[in-house]
Amino acid sequence: MRILGIDPGSRATGYGLIEKQGNRLRHLDNGVILTGGEAPLSERLGIIYRDLGGVIDRYAPTVMAVEQIFLARNALSALKLGHARGVALLAGIHHELPVFEYTALQVKSAVVGYGRADKAQIQAMVRVLLALPEIAQEDASDALAVAICHAHSAGMNQRLAQAGKR
Amino acid sequence: MRILGIDPGSRATGYGLIEKQGNRLRHLDNGVILTGGEAPLSERLGIIYRDLGGVIDRYAPTVMAVEQIFLARNALSALKLGHARGVALLAGIHHELPVFEYTALQVKSAVVGYGRADKAQIQAMVRVLLALPEIAQEDASDALAVAICHAHSAGMNQRLAQAGKR
Repeated sequence: MRILGIDPGSRATGYGLIEKQGNRLRHLDNGVILTGGEAPLSERLGIIYRDLGGVIDRYAPTVMAVEQIFLARNALSALKLGHARGVALLAGIHHELPVFEYTALQVKSAVVGYGRADKAQIQAMVRVLLALPEIAQEDASDALAVAICHAHSAGMNQRLAQAGKR
Repeated sequence: MRILGIDPGSRATGYGLIEKQGNRLRHLDNGVILTGGEAPLSERLGIIYRDLGGVIDRYAPTVMAVEQIFLARNALSALKLGHARGVALLAGIHHELPVFEYTALQVKSAVVGYGRADKAQIQAMVRVLLALPEIAQEDASDALAVAICHAHSAGMNQRLAQAGKR
């Protein structure tokens, strides 16, 4: 299973690709799509959609995982984030990827083992879990974290399904 | 000039098409894209993008006009609205439509003549200005209102440009 994790934002959208083989996770790629703050919002959305489409074409992931958001600093930042997140979800749908959403609590628990981990702890654990040569950029690391969360959940669901068959 | 006005929402996205010929406005069509509240958000976004694309293909508008939003009831509703709005803007960009944004104040001033008009007044004025047989549904009427706002602004910009040439 090849998982594309996404951390959307109107200025910077992180992505991270991992491969799950049995219980092992392998890092494939990560990066940040920068849209620049100068261009009109609609153009920036076009860039996010196009570049995510390029990443999907290149790596052919089987699923997309995105953090589910309940809180935002304020309504305006939530609105901007929503634009970017909507376009990212659409890129997944248009490439026929099933889209999974995880709360920040689920992501932190999956990566660090408890839900109150701070950003630096998550970045460090993502590095360790995927044997990265160095710590990934914050947005890319967050995207890898949600991909790892999906890998763990998928493993759990598979074990539950097998247990159900017995 | 053929103008597509949009009033995006994650459950209901209004659209309105008008044609501006000189100083006259002609109504072409209006409607509401209902996505249902049951489907996952990513599917609903797919419906908005697909159906707006269908409307654009059918009527070949020359521009898209959308209300610019500064305020929302709360961060969660802003986030949901942002998803739908981002996908609507992307539909415009992908059809190579220039996208114009207007504040609620600009829309109300253009349609009713003052910025504190209430919803019923706007719906009634949209009906009068476009000679509709009856009042349009609220989301569709709001979409027509932003299209009318663009028609007025475009007329103003043209007159300013002509004045500049003298």
